Amino acid sequence: MQVTDFYVSAPGKAILHGEHAVVHGKVALAVSLNLRTYLRLKATTTDKVCINLPNIDTFLCWDLSELSQLIPYSFDKREEVKLLDAELVGRLQDFLGVTNGNLDTRNMATLSFLYIYISLFRSSELPSLTLTVWSELPTGAGLGSSAAYSVCLAAALLCASGAIPSPLKEWDHTARWCQEDLELINSWAFQGEMIIHGNPSGVDNAVGTWGGMLRFLAGKIIPLSRVPLLRILLTNTKVPRSTKVLVARVKDKINKFPSIMTPVLDSVDAVSCTCEKVLSEMTREPIRGEHYNTLEELIDINQHHLNVMGVGHPALDTLCRVTLTRGLHSKLTGAGGGGCGITLLRPETDASVIQTTVQDLKDCGFDCWETSIGGPGVQQHSPLSVKEEVLEVLNHY
Amino acid sequence: MQVTDFYVSAPGKAILHGEHAVVHGKVALAVSLNLRTYLRLKATTTDKVCINLPNIDTFLCWDLSELSQLIPYSFDKREEVKLLDAELVGRLQDFLGVTNGNLDTRNMATLSFLYIYISLFRSSELPSLTLTVWSELPTGAGLGSSAAYSVCLAAALLCASGAIPSPLKEWDHTARWCQEDLELINSWAFQGEMIIHGNPSGVDNAVGTWGGMLRFLAGKIIPLSRVPLLRILLTNTKVPRSTKVLVARVKDKINKFPSIMTPVLDSVDAVSCTCEKVLSEMTREPIRGEHYNTLEELIDINQHHLNVMGVGHPALDTLCRVTLTRGLHSKLTGAGGGGCGITLLRPETDASVIQTTVQDLKDCGFDCWETSIGGPGVQQHSPLSVKEEVLEVLNHY
Repeated sequence: MQVTDFYVSAPGKAILHGEHAVVHGKVALAVSLNLRTYLRLKATTTDKVCINLPNIDTFLCWDLSELSQLIPYSFDKREEVKLLDAELVGRLQDFLGVTNGNLDTRNMATLSFLYIYISLFRSSELPSLTLTVWSELPTGAGLGSSAAYSVCLAAALLCASGAIPSPLKEWDHTARWCQEDLELINSWAFQGEMIIHGNPSGVDNAVGTWGGMLRFLAGKIIPLSRVPLLRILLTNTKVPRSTKVLVARVKDKINKFPSIMTPVLDSVDAVSCTCEKVLSEMTREPIRGEHYNTLEELIDINQHHLNVMGVGHPALDTLCRVTLTRGLHSKLTGAGGGGCGITLLRPETDASVIQTTVQDLKDCGFDCWETSIGGPGVQQHSPLSVKEEVLEVLNHY
Repeated sequence: MQVTDFYVSAPGKAILHGEHAVVHGKVALAVSLNLRTYLRLKATTTDKVCINLPNIDTFLCWDLSELSQLIPYSFDKREEVKLLDAELVGRLQDFLGVTNGNLDTRNMATLSFLYIYISLFRSSELPSLTLTVWSELPTGAGLGSSAAYSVCLAAALLCASGAIPSPLKEWDHTARWCQEDLELINSWAFQGEMIIHGNPSGVDNAVGTWGGMLRFLAGKIIPLSRVPLLRILLTNTKVPRSTKVLVARVKDKINKFPSIMTPVLDSVDAVSCTCEKVLSEMTREPIRGEHYNTLEELIDINQHHLNVMGVGHPALDTLCRVTLTRGLHSKLTGAGGGGCGITLLRPETDASVIQTTVQDLKDCGFDCWETSIGGPGVQQHSPLSVKEEVLEVLNHY
């Protein structure tokens, strides 16, 4: 099968409001984070399939003849992509020498790629190609880097297999797929996520696919039609933490102080709903300073609530304090206990203020990016629309 | 009428939990603060009544003949002390040249003294005496300094008038009155508070009278039988604020975000009730580290809630941060927006840690005292039981 060259990108994810509360049946708002993962698919004639993941120093090639041995006999239909093909997963684990106890990032990324690649091409001929993926997202920081990777893989390989069309017209810089195609991309990305995470919520790949904002409640994911693009700083305190430990800590606190904590969860729920309402207003009426004031107030309130839940950290307090001295409001995003925080930038926030703030945060030992939330999900790119420094990396291999 | 020399003291007040929430129908816990106001009553033969208030540079004397002109004709019975005698107040205002627009601390303190003095002795002969009052409490900091003053005045003058006995036995250092006498002291102290504050809640004079802890809910004041004495640091950030403005700010926030703020008030209510339960446990069972852990958690939670209500201040954040670096937990007390904060000291907290923390806080420009909450209310002292530096001041005049 012959494929054509192809550039695709997918965004990361941040939780705007409702982290932890969502575990206890409350609304969470997940938003796309415009730190993106880029993928280049290149057709080759080497009868090999190669994958280059420079972020995690992984560069692998396999002969197509070797891989075709792994295709299971039983035939998996596209409608059944809600479940993993256990036989294929097992064969791939054996092939790569990966056991369930050896789930490092490189192995998971490789396994996920080969799974989607073989699954999509098992009924035809395995194509000769090279995939290179480069991400602006830090890995393991709760920013949906694995989902952005899986979404890119799914979109590129579905396109290469002919299951979905290439949406890019000659004169386009970027283009997106129709709803039906996005659903297919999302379901294959979810397969990748299942391989990487075991039991993912599906939020990360949905955000990577649809972009914008999603409402997540009791396992149900509802993409919100229109949200404004909000400029933010994304700060990684680099304080390591375990999501599992933090989730358990919140649960313990609820058990210890039910009468105190139950209303706090209700208040967080109301923060998410109020935020959703304000963002929706911002797409329907002229954006006013008051909209931003309210968004800032909600950020402050939720950050205090997260501290009450016990998932704050002195590094996050520092983030909030440092940004507040510049008039900017921050909260943790995701699991907390360290990890990442977001800082809302107002439309009128001056470039010099942003620059100084970023420098202040870097001086605290944090990583900091100026980016945005609420931007587009997975999209195809013309080479011209890929940032030069990213293109350089992608074309290097 | 001949009176005998007399030393009396009354504590200040701090809000342990529930400030602001109490305005919205939730429980507040008011505790006695062992920064005390001391009063010395000295019998004289000068046919004068003198008052010395060195804290506010007030030293005044009047001839008894002059004051006896002010006694109203109508006779006020002791049972009717719930209301002010408007005729007497008017006469005293005229006498002192005080109008309602000129309500400074000195005038209010003087008016309050003369009102109680004349009221209690109007049916007999005005006695010749000198009162000296010295307070460890900063004034106007929301720590109940005016109530402690009124309680001391009421206790000393009621005792001098023979309305209540002197409880001090020869061998005692300190002594307290029986319940009935305390109720009389409290009702006269409330009169003093009405003169000073116009429309006081009655909490401050109740704490000054009964000490320990009071539960305040929907205007009802319930003294709690037994509470443990807790060591604290009391810090005055000296950031000026208006209680009225802060109360309005909370109200505005509740109106803006009812679904978010209503559960926060419920959570504060639960903090107060949980704290009351823990303190009561601490009087019934051996005090464990876990009790203190819980008290610390409640302090942290409420401080976050008060920030959510919008009554925090960077100076209070500094207080919390500085004390937390020493493992100590703090919250604002009272109106917030600056003002005072309390820091819980554990039984095992080392003297050196306390000393360093106090110094750190003083280095921030704050005033800081090591004291306790939950101690006794108004009491009579033998001169020996008054701290030497206080005795020196009281006996100087």
